[in-house]
Amino acid sequence: MLHTVVMAGGSGTRFWPVSRQDLPKQFLSLFGDRSLIKQAVGRCRTLSSDERTWIVTGAAHAVETGRQLPDVPASHILIEPCGRNTAPCIGLAALCLLAEDPDAVMLVTPADHVIQPEAEFVTAVERAVATLETSPEKLCLFGIVPDRPATGYGYIERGESLAGVDRVFNVVRFREKPNLETAQDFLDAGNFLWNSGIFVWRADTIVRELERLQPELIAVLNRIRERLGEPDFAETLEREFPHCPSISIDYAVLEHSQDVCVLEAPFGWDDVGSWSALARLHPKDEHDNTVLGRHVGIETKNCTIFSSDDHLVTTIGLDECVVVHTENATLVAKLDDEAQVKELLKAIEAAGLEAFL
Amino acid sequence: MLHTVVMAGGSGTRFWPVSRQDLPKQFLSLFGDRSLIKQAVGRCRTLSSDERTWIVTGAAHAVETGRQLPDVPASHILIEPCGRNTAPCIGLAALCLLAEDPDAVMLVTPADHVIQPEAEFVTAVERAVATLETSPEKLCLFGIVPDRPATGYGYIERGESLAGVDRVFNVVRFREKPNLETAQDFLDAGNFLWNSGIFVWRADTIVRELERLQPELIAVLNRIRERLGEPDFAETLEREFPHCPSISIDYAVLEHSQDVCVLEAPFGWDDVGSWSALARLHPKDEHDNTVLGRHVGIETKNCTIFSSDDHLVTTIGLDECVVVHTENATLVAKLDDEAQVKELLKAIEAAGLEAFL
Repeated sequence: MLHTVVMAGGSGTRFWPVSRQDLPKQFLSLFGDRSLIKQAVGRCRTLSSDERTWIVTGAAHAVETGRQLPDVPASHILIEPCGRNTAPCIGLAALCLLAEDPDAVMLVTPADHVIQPEAEFVTAVERAVATLETSPEKLCLFGIVPDRPATGYGYIERGESLAGVDRVFNVVRFREKPNLETAQDFLDAGNFLWNSGIFVWRADTIVRELERLQPELIAVLNRIRERLGEPDFAETLEREFPHCPSISIDYAVLEHSQDVCVLEAPFGWDDVGSWSALARLHPKDEHDNTVLGRHVGIETKNCTIFSSDDHLVTTIGLDECVVVHTENATLVAKLDDEAQVKELLKAIEAAGLEAFL
Repeated sequence: MLHTVVMAGGSGTRFWPVSRQDLPKQFLSLFGDRSLIKQAVGRCRTLSSDERTWIVTGAAHAVETGRQLPDVPASHILIEPCGRNTAPCIGLAALCLLAEDPDAVMLVTPADHVIQPEAEFVTAVERAVATLETSPEKLCLFGIVPDRPATGYGYIERGESLAGVDRVFNVVRFREKPNLETAQDFLDAGNFLWNSGIFVWRADTIVRELERLQPELIAVLNRIRERLGEPDFAETLEREFPHCPSISIDYAVLEHSQDVCVLEAPFGWDDVGSWSALARLHPKDEHDNTVLGRHVGIETKNCTIFSSDDHLVTTIGLDECVVVHTENATLVAKLDDEAQVKELLKAIEAAGLEAFL
């Protein structure tokens, strides 16, 4: 049976001031009429019911996760006491759902990506599941065909097609986030895909690979798994999980495994990593402004404006800026300086204004 | 006796969104710890007590005026049913205070200018009053020594010194708001002063000049004066005042009178006509930003930031911008486009968002 594991560990710094420490972007409805985590669970619902859905999140976000996803069993909302990157997160989920279904296939997906249309996503996952039926040892990941030389994503160099399966390829190698020149080379070469962070594999396969490649990690996770269903499970999880090494599933397993294959995604994908995603994913007005909420502008172009119906943002003479208004904080930034949002948040902390983070 | 007449007819568009239709800039504490109208009355208090203070304002602002100036007699707060520029305003006040004091000297001052230090202002007014004691027919106005080629003010070309009085000059002519080139010529010539809109004269003198030069206007005002102290005074004022021609005291009288003299002001003066005044009148930080309220900036310079203690404004990569946050509206503008605030307010109205004006 297919189970969905939603990784919801996001900390919510990039969409500040809309996202906050206690409200990271998976909970926001910046893209569509539902939050990103509701969209993530929703698009998997025809593949695996809520009863076969698992969420891995942090303690700070457990309550909001439970509220936004009332139909996911409470025992399926796994609380990481601290962030340890994706390998411990995925390993823990794999062990937990194996206990419920020894034959489980896992669809692993971040909680905070935009994927459209849903039907194409469902078809693609079904194609991955079909691949596993003939090649159960495979670790399938979705690769996105690049449309620009993005420097913010990892790339996958794809090799030859898997025999008899359309748009599924062996992986030659993983490539870390490139500089702009290398990213352009990848784009020109035509055989590079973005690593979407969306995976499909059998739970027993990934556990076996973790046992082989990350014995230390799996030892910690096994101590947690032993208490599954026991009164001290939560306590054990809280005590043991921090002993996991902090490592991504890519570094921990995928880059060392011979069984990885990449499916060229037929769906639109955006990791909505910064405010510029708002402009990519919403229509623009006649001056190429992207506006959510009330706005009146004079000589304003190529700007992204975010406000609400009851707060009017006005702009005069602005070009390529983002203006974001929330109840207790406002951000005004030149769009190409978005990476500095992290620097800004450090400066806010340094100024003793943590209450605004 | 010296009486103070405060002209408080401001409509409050230039400091939007802090100033609003129902809260023009004379009521704001943008400059100092008291509102501008409180400062205006306060600096005249040693010259003329609250009992000899008159305020001319609009109906929309009568309540707030009364609240901010609880010690000014209610009968001295004259309500214009509509704006008719300064000549009707000053003529009305002159007639009203002549009824109380036939020997009255009037100090006429706008409610919304910044003047510092107060002591210099008081001394200057006393000097004007002394001038009137020897030359009671004089119409004295304060001229400000320009420190930049401002294009937003009227200029006064001064002539020779009045015999025996220091820094008081005859007026050669009034010059309308110049273009930048002409303003630079004025600045270079050294014998031009800004027209501050602050006047000192005997009430009977200005009435006589209005009778001579604006008989139509004074006829309307006399119909109002006749009902002074009667139950139907307010009703008469409301009915008759709109019949006044809309004309400034400069056009109506000063430019045609032979008795105008200009006193070079020894005090600092700013008409705080736009957001750039905030930068002129407040200290700058090490990046030449002027900040009121909470702000954290990254690569931000030459900006003016206005917020409050409980709303954090953040900026990244901004230069020469003004960012103003208020509870229900935000303005982000390139500083050199400030004149466009009026255009912006029209656009807000056109968008059906009058509630934000």
